[in-house]
This record gives sequence, C-alpha cells and structure tokens, in this order.
Amino acid sequence: MHRVLVLNGPNLDVLGQRRSELYGTQTLAEIETRLRERALQWPDVQLEFYQANGEGELIDWLHRHMGSAEALIVNAGGLTHTSVSLRDAIEALAVPTVEVHLSNIHGREEFRQRSLLAPLCLGSICGLGGFGYEAALEALARRAELPRRT
Amino acid sequence: MHRVLVLNGPNLDVLGQRRSELYGTQTLAEIETRLRERALQWPDVQLEFYQANGEGELIDWLHRHMGSAEALIVNAGGLTHTSVSLRDAIEALAVPTVEVHLSNIHGREEFRQRSLLAPLCLGSICGLGGFGYEAALEALARRAELPRRT
Amino acid sequence: MHRVLVLNGPNLDVLGQRRSELYGTQTLAEIETRLRERALQWPDVQLEFYQANGEGELIDWLHRHMGSAEALIVNAGGLTHTSVSLRDAIEALAVPTVEVHLSNIHGREEFRQRSLLAPLCLGSICGLGGFGYEAALEALARRAELPRRT
Amino acid sequence: MHRVLVLNGPNLDVLGQRRSELYGTQTLAEIETRLRERALQWPDVQLEFYQANGEGELIDWLHRHMGSAEALIVNAGGLTHTSVSLRDAIEALAVPTVEVHLSNIHGREEFRQRSLLAPLCLGSICGLGGFGYEAALEALARRAELPRRT
Amino acid sequence: MHRVLVLNGPNLDVLGQRRSELYGTQTLAEIETRLRERALQWPDVQLEFYQANGEGELIDWLHRHMGSAEALIVNAGGLTHTSVSLRDAIEALAVPTVEVHLSNIHGREEFRQRSLLAPLCLGSICGLGGFGYEAALEALARRAELPRRT
Amino acid sequence: MHRVLVLNGPNLDVLGQRRSELYGTQTLAEIETRLRERALQWPDVQLEFYQANGEGELIDWLHRHMGSAEALIVNAGGLTHTSVSLRDAIEALAVPTVEVHLSNIHGREEFRQRSLLAPLCLGSICGLGGFGYEAALEALARRAELPRRT
Amino acid sequence: MHRVLVLNGPNLDVLGQRRSELYGTQTLAEIETRLRERALQWPDVQLEFYQANGEGELIDWLHRHMGSAEALIVNAGGLTHTSVSLRDAIEALAVPTVEVHLSNIHGREEFRQRSLLAPLCLGSICGLGGFGYEAALEALARRAELPRRT
Amino acid sequence: MHRVLVLNGPNLDVLGQRRSELYGTQTLAEIETRLRERALQWPDVQLEFYQANGEGELIDWLHRHMGSAEALIVNAGGLTHTSVSLRDAIEALAVPTVEVHLSNIHGREEFRQRSLLAPLCLGSICGLGGFGYEAALEALARRAELPRRT
Amino acid sequence: MHRVLVLNGPNLDVLGQRRSELYGTQTLAEIETRLRERALQWPDVQLEFYQANGEGELIDWLHRHMGSAEALIVNAGGLTHTSVSLRDAIEALAVPTVEVHLSNIHGREEFRQRSLLAPLCLGSICGLGGFGYEAALEALARRAELPRRT
Amino acid sequence: MHRVLVLNGPNLDVLGQRRSELYGTQTLAEIETRLRERALQWPDVQLEFYQANGEGELIDWLHRHMGSAEALIVNAGGLTHTSVSLRDAIEALAVPTVEVHLSNIHGREEFRQRSLLAPLCLGSICGLGGFGYEAALEALARRAELPRRT
Amino acid sequence: MHRVLVLNGPNLDVLGQRRSELYGTQTLAEIETRLRERALQWPDVQLEFYQANGEGELIDWLHRHMGSAEALIVNAGGLTHTSVSLRDAIEALAVPTVEVHLSNIHGREEFRQRSLLAPLCLGSICGLGGFGYEAALEALARRAELPRRT
Amino acid sequence: MHRVLVLNGPNLDVLGQRRSELYGTQTLAEIETRLRERALQWPDVQLEFYQANGEGELIDWLHRHMGSAEALIVNAGGLTHTSVSLRDAIEALAVPTVEVHLSNIHGREEFRQRSLLAPLCLGSICGLGGFGYEAALEALARRAELPRRT
Repeated sequence: MHRVLVLNGPNLDVLGQRRSELYGTQTLAEIETRLRERALQWPDVQLEFYQANGEGELIDWLHRHMGSAEALIVNAGGLTHTSVSLRDAIEALAVPTVEVHLSNIHGREEFRQRSLLAPLCLGSICGLGGFGYEAALEALARRAELPRRT
Repeated sequence: MHRVLVLNGPNLDVLGQRRSELYGTQTLAEIETRLRERALQWPDVQLEFYQANGEGELIDWLHRHMGSAEALIVNAGGLTHTSVSLRDAIEALAVPTVEVHLSNIHGREEFRQRSLLAPLCLGSICGLGGFGYEAALEALARRAELPRRT
Repeated sequence: MHRVLVLNGPNLDVLGQRRSELYGTQTLAEIETRLRERALQWPDVQLEFYQANGEGELIDWLHRHMGSAEALIVNAGGLTHTSVSLRDAIEALAVPTVEVHLSNIHGREEFRQRSLLAPLCLGSICGLGGFGYEAALEALARRAELPRRT
Repeated sequence: MHRVLVLNGPNLDVLGQRRSELYGTQTLAEIETRLRERALQWPDVQLEFYQANGEGELIDWLHRHMGSAEALIVNAGGLTHTSVSLRDAIEALAVPTVEVHLSNIHGREEFRQRSLLAPLCLGSICGLGGFGYEAALEALARRAELPRRT
Repeated sequence: MHRVLVLNGPNLDVLGQRRSELYGTQTLAEIETRLRERALQWPDVQLEFYQANGEGELIDWLHRHMGSAEALIVNAGGLTHTSVSLRDAIEALAVPTVEVHLSNIHGREEFRQRSLLAPLCLGSICGLGGFGYEAALEALARRAELPRRT
Repeated sequence: MHRVLVLNGPNLDVLGQRRSELYGTQTLAEIETRLRERALQWPDVQLEFYQANGEGELIDWLHRHMGSAEALIVNAGGLTHTSVSLRDAIEALAVPTVEVHLSNIHGREEFRQRSLLAPLCLGSICGLGGFGYEAALEALARRAELPRRT
Repeated sequence: MHRVLVLNGPNLDVLGQRRSELYGTQTLAEIETRLRERALQWPDVQLEFYQANGEGELIDWLHRHMGSAEALIVNAGGLTHTSVSLRDAIEALAVPTVEVHLSNIHGREEFRQRSLLAPLCLGSICGLGGFGYEAALEALARRAELPRRT
Repeated sequence: MHRVLVLNGPNLDVLGQRRSELYGTQTLAEIETRLRERALQWPDVQLEFYQANGEGELIDWLHRHMGSAEALIVNAGGLTHTSVSLRDAIEALAVPTVEVHLSNIHGREEFRQRSLLAPLCLGSICGLGGFGYEAALEALARRAELPRRT
Repeated sequence: MHRVLVLNGPNLDVLGQRRSELYGTQTLAEIETRLRERALQWPDVQLEFYQANGEGELIDWLHRHMGSAEALIVNAGGLTHTSVSLRDAIEALAVPTVEVHLSNIHGREEFRQRSLLAPLCLGSICGLGGFGYEAALEALARRAELPRRT
Repeated sequence: MHRVLVLNGPNLDVLGQRRSELYGTQTLAEIETRLRERALQWPDVQLEFYQANGEGELIDWLHRHMGSAEALIVNAGGLTHTSVSLRDAIEALAVPTVEVHLSNIHGREEFRQRSLLAPLCLGSICGLGGFGYEAALEALARRAELPRRT
Repeated sequence: MHRVLVLNGPNLDVLGQRRSELYGTQTLAEIETRLRERALQWPDVQLEFYQANGEGELIDWLHRHMGSAEALIVNAGGLTHTSVSLRDAIEALAVPTVEVHLSNIHGREEFRQRSLLAPLCLGSICGLGGFGYEAALEALARRAELPRRT
Repeated sequence: MHRVLVLNGPNLDVLGQRRSELYGTQTLAEIETRLRERALQWPDVQLEFYQANGEGELIDWLHRHMGSAEALIVNAGGLTHTSVSLRDAIEALAVPTVEVHLSNIHGREEFRQRSLLAPLCLGSICGLGGFGYEAALEALARRAELPRRT
C-alpha cells in the first residue's frame, strides 16, 4: 500500500464560495472526488485527504502520519508564505512532496511570491486549478514506479 | 437586521492586564459593553463579538458567518502583520470592513508598520483605544445608511 | 475654552472636484460645516479650520497658534509622506494630535504607505471620508474629558 | 481655443546663470519665446506659461486652471523627485500631460532617477534642452488633432 | 486543429549530458517523443516543438506563429530569469501559456527565484522533469475542452 | 515557591525522530526528565513543562499562568521567527525569560536569523542541545538568588 | 552627408499587432515612412533604419557602422533594461544618441523602470508613440546645426 | 566687502520654544546677535541673516543674492533631508558653503541621517548648538584669508 | 589534558567600569576566577584565559595554540560584528567553539545583530552575564564527555 | 593533446577601437597572437579561439566542444553580468575555467560588480589587459601539470 | 585641570603626504601646534595628543585615560566607519566628545557615509581641515564653561 | 632598482595548516620562495615580503615604504572586506597595485564578495593559489617595462 497524504490549509474549505474569478467554482469536495477517481489508476495508492484552518491542527495531522505515509501533496494556502513551523513539519515527515496552488501565485501580490515550502519539495504546480492535484499525484506515482491498473 | 461582526485576535483577552501605558486599563469586556451601548443608536444593528488566540479559530468563526454578516470590525492583534490566511478569510467574507488598533502602531516597532489587512478594508483607526471600535461602527452604519434610533 | 486646530494640506481645496471615486463628492467646506455641527456637542470646543497648499504657510499657521491651541486634527495631504518640516512644526506645537486621511492610504501607492506624522500622533484614522474628522474630534474631546452639552 | 499650460518649477528662473555645461545658456524667457513661435503653427493653441519656486504657488496656479485647461507641459525641477502634493495637483487637473527635463536626469544622481510625476503623464522628454518643450507641444497638438496653420 | 507550440530555450539541446543529478538523464528528444505520444489522446492537437540557444531565434520563431497558434508550453531555461524581450514576445503571442521547468528552481540559486515569464502564464510546473510537459499539455487541452480520443 | 514555565513550540513533540544530525536523538521527554533532575538543586523551583503545535494553544497556556509564574524558558520552534502574537503574549507575562534553541540557528537559513522573541528576553542560548534548558534554568535561578539544596 | 542610425530591438517587428492599447496601431514600417518624410527637412541627413530580435545581430549592425555614422536613435525594446552588451556597443559607437520608447515605461512594471542605455544618451523620449522618433531626429539635427531644406 | 549669507529654514523661528532638551533655550535672534558679535573680528564681513518656513521663499532669497554673495552658512532644518530644489539653488549660488545643525542629527531618526545638501558643502558642523554658526563663519573667513580686526 | 582557550576581545579589560546597567559590575578577573572554580569539576580541563584589544594580538594568540587546544570559548566584543580575520583564525583553529556575550545583543543596536563568528560555533549564549562562560564550559565538557571530579 | 577553449563575448571584436583609456589599444587579434606565442611553452596545448556578439552563438560554440575540451578561458564581456544561460552552458562544459576581464571591473559601474560566471570558475583575473589571458593559460597548464617545452 | 584627549586614528601620521587635494598640505604636527596655541586661551585646558594606526593601541590609550580625562576630540580616520570596538571604548570613557574629519566625508564614497561614532558624540565637524580640531576644542571649553585667559 | 612590496594580511602565516581543500598545502614561505625565483627574471626587481595579523602593523609597514616603493602586491586576507584604513594606506602609497587572493572569493560567503581594495588596484587575481603572486609580479614588471634577464 502506498499512502499519499493530501494536506489542505486555511480557507480551502470555502473554495467555490470566494473569488471564483481567481479560484474557480469547484469546491474542495469536488477536487477530492476527481482526485480519488484518478487515483484508481494506481491500485496501490491510498489517499488521505485533510483540511484545516489552524497551523497547529495541520502540523498535528502530519505528525500522526509520520512513518506511515509515503508521499505528500500540499496546498498550504496562506501558510505557504508565512509558516516556518509547517515547513519544519513537512521536513520531519521526510517523504517526496509536491506543492500545489490553484491560482498562479506568481501573478499576484508581492507577499505571495515567496514559498517557504517550495525548497523542500520535489516540485510545484500552480495556476492549473484542481487539475494540479491530479498532476501532482501522477508525478508522485511515476516517481515511485507504481504499477498502473490494467 | 444588519449583522456586524467584531473579531478580536490574540492577546486581546488579557487586555487591561498588560502594558497599560500602551493599551490602557480597559478590558475587552468593557470595550464590548460600551460598543453595545453605542450600537443601540441604530436599531437594526446586531453585534457578534468574538475573541480567540488561534489563527485557525478566528478563520473558522469568519467562515461560519459567510453569507449572514453585513459588516466587519477587526482588531487582529499580532496577526495583523503576519497572517496571509486571515487576510484571505476576510477577503472571502466580502463585506465592508474597518480595521481597529488600540495603540498607535505607527509609533512602535518596525515589524508593526505593515498591515496585511489594511488594503482590504474601507479604512482603519489606530491609537484611539476602545473608542476606535465605536467610531468604526458609526462609520459602517453611516455607510450603510442605517436609520438612527429616534 | 478648548481650542482645536484643524489643519488641511495641499489639494484639499479642490476636494469634490477630483477623483470622486477615491475622495467622494463632499467639498472641504461641507466637511467643515458637518464638523462644526458635531462640535456643538462640546460647548467648550472652539474650532480653527485652515487650508493651504504651501508647506511654509501651513507651518506659519501652526507657529501662530503655539501656546494657544490645545489639540490638533491634521490632514496633511501629500505632505504626510514627504515633509520633515511639517513634522517638526507639529512636534513643536506639542498638543494631542489625530491624523486623518479621507482615502485608505494603505491600499494605494507604495510612497503613500509611510506617514512621517503618524509617530507623533495619538492615533490616525483613514479611509472613512469626512467622518474621520468627526471621529478625531470626539476622540480628542473624550481624552480631554470635556463636558458634553446636555 | 485649446489652452496649454506650461508649468516651471524651482530654479528655472535662474536658468542660463547656473551650471551651463548641464543646462545650457538659454534663459527661461528665451525658451518661452521659442515655444510661443512654434505654437503659432496651431492657431487654436493658447499658451499659459508660469514659473515659481514654491510648491504651494505651483499648486495654487494649477488649481486656478482646473476646468479651463486642456493640456499640460510640466518641468517641475527638483520637485519632480519629491513632491507628492504636486503630483496630486496634476492628477486633479486631469488633462493630457507631458513631462520635460532640460538635462538627462538618467545620467545624474541616484535621487534624480525617480520621477513621481512620470506615471501620470502621457510621456516624458529629457536631455534635449529647450527643444523638449517644443516637442512636447507638438506631441500634445497631434494627439488632440489640432489643425495646423496653413 | 489546435496548434500547441512547445518552446525550449538555451542549453536544453544538451539535456541528459549535463548535471544529471539535477536534470535527469532524459534527452530533449525523448521528452518530445513522450509528449507526442501523450498528445495522441487529443486528436485535434498538433504539436510544434522547437529549441534554440539564441534569444533572437526564439523570438523570431514565436513571431512566425502569431495568429496560427492556440497555446504555448514554454521552458525558457536561463532566459526565464533575464529576458524581458522573450516576455514581450510571449505577451504578443497572446495565447494560453504554461511554464515548465525540469528542476525545482525554488530550491536553487537566488537569481533563479524570479521568473519574468510566470506572471503572463496560466500557471507553471517545476521540478517534475519531462512529465511537466505532459501535465502542461493536459492542462491546456482540458481548458480548451478538446475532445479526447475514444 | 518559584514557578518556572517551560514553553515548547511546534514540532518539538517529534524531537528525536527528525533530522537527528541537527537536533540530536534526545526526545522532548528526555529533555524534561534531565531538566527536572537539575531543578532539584533549587528546592523552591517548580517546573511547568508544556508543548503544543498551535500558536493559539501556546498563547492560551501562557495567559493561564499570568500572575502565577515567576520565570519563563521558551523554545518556540518555527514561531520564533514569525509570531508577533506569541511575542506579545510573552511581553504580557512580564517575567524574566530565557530563549533556548537546540540547534545553532545562526548557521542555518536566512529566515531563521531573526528572532522576534530575543529582544524581550534576558538572553538566549542556542546550539547546545537539551543542555540549553538546564543552563537557562540555572541562569534564572541565580538571577532570582534562589537558595541551592544543601 | 550626416548618417543617422535608427536601431530597433526585439518585438518591434510585430508592432501594430500586439497590445495596441499600449503601443498604438502604427506598424514599424509606417513609423519609418513618417520618419523618412520628416528627414527630408534636412537635405544632409541619410537614415539607416534597422530592426532585429537578437542582441548579437543588433551589436553586429552597430559595429558595421562604427566610424561612418554620426548619430543614433535607439529603441532597444526589452533589451533596454537588460543588455549591458548593447550598452557597451553604443558606447563604442561614440556618437550623439537619443533613446526612444513608444509607451511610457515609467508607468509600467518595476523592471522597466531602469534603462541601462539612458546614461549614455543625450536624452530620451518616451510615451509619445512614433512621434518620438521624429522629435529625436529633430533634436539631433538641431544639435549638429544641420541646414534645413529651404 | 565679503558678503556672507546665513540661511535658516523651517521652524528655526520658534527656536527656544520647542524641545529645549534637544535644541537648547537660545532663540534664533540670540544666535544672530552672537554671530554678529563674532563677525566683528573680520572688518570685511557683512552678514545677511534670513529665516523662512517656505521652501519657495528660501530659494527666492538665495536667487536674489546670486552674484553678490561670497559665502553661505545654511541650516535648512527639515528641508535638509527632503529638498532637492533647495540643493539646486545652493548649487546655483556657487559659493563656499558650510552646513550647520544645532542638534546632532546622527543620533536621531533614520530619516535625518541623509543630508541632500552636505555633498555640495565644504563641510558641516552639527550638535554644537549656536556655536556651530560661529565656527562656520570662522572657517569661511580663514578660507577666504580675510584680514582680522587688529 | 583538555586545553580550553578563553578568548576575550576589545574593552573586556574595563568590564565593571563601564555601563554597569548593561554589563553588570563584575570584572573580567572575577569572571575568570569563577570560571576557574567551576572548571575544577572536570580534572582534565586546563584553562587558558586571554584578553587583548587588538585584532592582530588576538589572532596571534589563537595561532600560537593551533594544534594544542581542544576547545574555545570566545567573547570577541565589538569584533564579533566586524572581523572577518578573527573569524578566519577561529576557523583555522578548528576546535569546538562556543560564543559568549555578556549582554543580550539581540536587544541592542542593529549593527550588533549580526555575528560573523556564530555560524562557525557549536552554539552561542548571550545576555546571561559572566554565567555564560560557565555554561559554555559545561557544554564543551559534556560534549567531550570529560569525566567529572568525583 | 590538451584542448583549451578561449571564448570572447560581445564587443571584443572592436577592441582597440573603443575607449582605449579603459581597454588599451591592443586588438583581439593581437591578444590571440601573443597568447598563441605563449602557448608554445606547452607542446600539448591546442588553443581554440572564438568571438561572437550573440549569446546564442557563444552557447552553440561551447556545446560543440562538450566532451572534447579540457579547459576554458572566458571573457564574456557584458554577458558576464547578465547571462544565466551562458553560465549554464559553462557549467555543462564542466572543465576547469578561468575568467578574464581586460579592465578592472571592480572600479566601474555598480552593475559590473556582479559576475554570474565567477562562482563556477577556478578563479578570475581582471584589470591586467591582454596579459590576463596569458596568466590564465599558465594557471590552467600548471594545474593540469602539462610538461613545458624544454 | 581639564584634560582634553585628542585621538587620531590610522593614516593621520602621513597627513600632508597623501592626497593633498583632499586633505590639504598641513601635517598632523602642524595641526597639533595650532591646536596647542589655541588651547592657551583656556588656562585650565591640558591637551593629550595621540596617534596610532592600530585599533588595539587606540583602545588601550583610551582605557589608560578612563577616569582622568574630561573631554575627547576624535578623528578616527577609516575606523570611523568600521570599528564597533573603538565605539565601545569611547562609550566606556563617558566624557563629552566631538568628532572631527578633515575632509567632507558626505561628499565621498558610500562606505564613508556612516559613522559608528557620531551617535555617541555631542556633535561632529567635517570638511574644515585642521580648523575642525580648534572648533571642537572651543565647543568643549564653552560647554564646560571654562574660564578664558584674560 | 624597482622595489616591489608584497603585503600579506591576517592568517596567511598559518597557510598550509588550515582548510587545505580551499587554500592548498603550500605555506607562505614556499610562496615567497617561488616568487623570489620568478623575480630573478627581472634584474631590477627587489622584493620586500611581509606578513602581519594586525591592521595597524600592516599600515605602519606601508607607511615606512612611502616614497621608496614602486609597486605593491597585496593579499589582505579578511581585511580585504572590512578595512577602510588599509585602503587609505594603500591609496597614500600611490603606486601601481595588484590584489591577489589564493581562493576564489566569488564562490564563497556573501561578505567576501566585496573588496574595499579592488577599486584602487590596477587589477586583481583570485583563485589561482600561489601562482597569483607570480602573475601579479609579471603584470607589474611588464607595465613598468622592466628589462628581462637575458
């Protein structure tokens, strides 16, 4: 079994209700549904999907999976730019990680240009909406050379 | 009914107990009491007053009022200068907002000079102590052209 | 008698004629009228209201009131961000001061983010239009514990 | 009638007397004479030419022409780099504006590299001496599609 | 027909020969082959694949496709961080664009942290090796709602 | 009785499990044990030892001890560099404080070079592993001139 | 004979096709035509007009005219802000130079605020569209005191 | 006759009334008196002493003395740090100049650390109160090798 | 034998005579005495204690102990922030090093915030007065697993 | 055979014709001649000498020698300070490299202070004119321990 | 007796031999002679005049006079801008201090703009050559209200 | 006779004993030996070779050779980046100077990127080990057109 964590940070719970010109109308539940469908391509993949608005809760959740997770997809929302603590928690987890952002953060405010998490990651995907999660999953599955469903 | 949220961030629960030369001796409960008295001038106003020390709790509370609140008064304490996530939550709420600070942050440390929230707000008031909340309420009530009690 | 100075800097004489989406349609005369009405609440308050476009004239006017004024409301317009000399004149006046800005300067150009005057003031109010003057007056009157008209 | 304002800031009154290796030996009166000659090409153009050393006077003069001017040529001298207030006055005037500098400010001191006025202008011309005023006038006349004298 | 340009900048011709710990052992020809295979999923997609080491050649090639291309995948190599001209050429092309980087530029030298191209793009993908091109193609195809081969 | 608080921030709960080359193999429980042993030297000392991953929980805990604590040892982990709110809570506590870091933060990433807490403290100790807590305790006990067990 | 070079950098070949709200609808050929018409005023002037997208080609072209050119009008497009090499080539040419930009670069992105070429030039003209070339030519002709066609 | 100008900028008219711990209790009239007494040592020296609060007035006054003054002592107050225009006027005057400040500006706010005038001057004296003017005069008289009264 | 060097930089010879509110009233001789007492706990420890005001002398002294010293405690005073040469000498010594400062440098002037030596050290201790030396010694002794006197 | 590449960037083709006070009167051909004479000291050395003004051509030329070159001497002219792509090409070449500049770039403009290439090189030589190439060659030959002609 | 120290830093021993266009042709011995002559005006003044090139020697000399000196004139040469240690020694001396520089450091290189010593001083004098020492002495004597020789 | 000074700064006395991966295993004595051998090529050259760890000693030594030296080779070690005083001493010496560094300082820490000495020098050589001294000598000898031994 290949456990892939999907961590979603602050304000992703109200996705689809806010600034749809920027984030689209998809809800987080819909993103999760589509991701789970795509995950069926790799029989070994088991997804753990989580969202919280508190830095502490997010770190607690990551700590609970230390030792049992094999990969991480992370969309840390606003904490991306400010949380040294979340960065340290991801570093402690020590699994291949891909960072996802729904919007193109490079075209937004100055303070969103820096990601504290990016240097720890294999790579990052931004601006491609919910599809970014799917691409992240495929990248991680390929890297781990997981067998595809035939 | 015109619901006005009043959000208070970290350390405002110990107001009156700390650095009174800077923040005065008024407690947050006293500020709330005076604000509720002033609010009686506008019969349609209904105040929701909240304080928490956790960024996550503050965001959760704002999310619970999405769609049902019409205005926001926010004193985010130390998160004013550091929380992109709280900023995003206020932007998601999408109601007229006035920022309040008890002390004059412009005369304090360098790291208190930048407010991540201010650009989202109608305006801001600082250095006027608990009166700042009252002025914020009056500004919001005038802007919404709420009838005064006669 | 409690003399409150109200100093208005460059371009406030053409208020209501320029950029109404930012500054509103109220003229400075209308702001003065409303402020004088509000001032009637405190019988002891005497307002001195002044506007000039020249840094020198503004400083001269402040110097003429040294020793006879008890409070200052200042909206220095563009000089807010550039005039060390006006700052020194306000410091020389040495009375409780509240800074007012009609628009929310925190949401505007970078060079409007710094106020040279703010660190000298009790506090500041911005983005609330002409109401800012009224709130400033109330804050100063409360602080001086002036009796209200009954 | 197409009224074109020509505003000249501090120290331009002593032009020709100072640093001729940088500013040339032409006086401001000579520049005005040549500009008026060139203006004869467009019968509708009426020039208003003004110089002052005080920021306040310059703003006052601009305010007096609000509503009656159709274009502005501005050489603000040292105020180019420091005056937010003059910038606001030009923005309030709200007519097509061309900025002129006699010397090439880009080859001079660091503090002359930033123009607070330039972002408000159609364009700017520097380093071409008194001819810059003429080119500015032609640019404004073309843009307004004024008929040439035949 | 939906023409998708794939533009590859300096040094991508020696991919697989340099710094394999960073860029992998795949050659650009192999990336092209895999991308063409994936493109078969969308019968309407026609790929134009190009590499050059000269900024001028890259711009010339983009200009030749103005009006006839519908999407762009761009990996500009070192020009990502330095070429205003390439940025202007992409802006002139005016089609949906996804930026790809083989390595995770966020974990590398300071001068690789800024992408001049990113703000013009829908989004960007980095650190996922040659798979980044495939994900970019899928993102563009989905966005254009191209029918999949059945 | 002399109550000494020991506050431990995010990720210290997984100490010994992460980056042992940097943080050593000691767990937080082992650090607490050794510290309690050392505390036996001063009969009046009573230790309160706490760890949490959430900024809000840490602030809540400090608030609960306002008035009843006489000293603070703080290792705020990643919050050291980002939390103005925690800084304000420590300032509100208003007791002699020593900052501890297990690793030598001065030899690590740029963003770990600034401590928001350090200016509020008596002093700080970093890079000496769990021994730092013991030295902090001894420093505080000496400063309070507590009698040693004889 | 007075040979005046007119050097046009990257993307000027697609002028009129891109971002017309910024650059207008005139093509480079039309600018050349109007400039040649204006040049007829000075019988001695001979124009050499060139455009290329490659930094190397532009430098090669300038080198070919070393010793035989007497003046330069340069619109280096995006290279204005990035090319030390083009700057060195212009310095090597050692003739009076005027820099031209079609749009007002001072009102655009931060990275367009610095011109590496400007300090080498007599002066610069920006924001006046194709007319800027004409004004540059007149400035150079006047400076060389070329006789006008009578 | 050796005419020495003494130019005093904003707020020096209220000297002795403001912040005496910083500026002393001497008035500007007293400084002038002492300076005139000292000037008697050099029979050829004729002092012109002036103060104004407006940048424009100060520049006008300097312009009136162009050609007839031989030296300048300048205390520009707050304009020292902000006025490019006053700097240009002093440069136009083109006589040996000594800058004086009553207080030690190097021990004050950051924005008082930079003097726009200092690079134009022979030298500067700060922090020595009214005596600074006398030392400046002696320095200028020595430099001009004026005969002392015997 | 375990030789521990204790290097003291400029101005530590006048300790106790200067700024006692900051540095305390202890002299360096008293610090040495207490440190030697504490060192008795580890029979193998031999202390070499040195102070000089000259950068060169300090470096010479370190060089004399290359090869024969096993640890270093360094309080470089003002050289901490400015001496690349002392840093290089410590690096050349190549033994475990702990940096000590008597005062809390993090709460002092900006130029004291950076330590050139810290990145070379195991760790650092500041603000704990003379006790810092003792803690440094204990940390080094523990790390070397020296036997305690029994 | 020991193949040493000598790469010369933009504007070196006009050496001797431009700014001789800075670059001397030697032409690039003369530098090449002297270098070839010196190279005769090492019978195994084979020089490949190249100059181009285009970044792309320079990179192409380096790519053609990947695998067959053993050392590189590079004088990249203006590209030294701006070309990430050339840097990447040199890194891909992966041979011992010495950077040469004819003039002392450390005494010139700010933008010439940073070399993007220097960190990749063994070392660099500047300000010694054409002799720098000879010294670079000798350094490379010594390092490779090539036999000298006897 | 009023002992005034005069401390001269590096390179002042070769004064008169170096860069006379900047520092004049006066030697330090001549400056001392003239200063001693001027000192005769105050019978109580006793001058101690010293020069050294080593930071350590300068600090040693200051320490020797702690307790017995009443004033300090300091020209620290290049150490002005770099020596935190000399600053600390002057602070330890704790007597009224005036800083002197022979040349106008404000018109020189960027790294000479900052004086680490200036904030500790009563004031500073620069650009007035050897006369600066005399003015410093007079300022100190006046401040101490020393009787003049009659 | 052509006297060439060779000045070696702090820590060069322990060369060969420290960080040999960076500085090599050659001692300073060996470098001197090889340099003296090479110097035999020019019969007129007389070498003065010196090393000290103290800034003051180095300056003293340079002063002793003022007037009698004709060239300088300087490797100032860590003082390169920090010593304004050494810079001034070299400027006072006023002879052709070449700066040498054994390691490639451009590939090391940020604070080693700036050389205060480089702008005063003819040129500089770094990263070529002890050979750098030999190349510096040859450059100086060629520039002075000294005859070679035949």
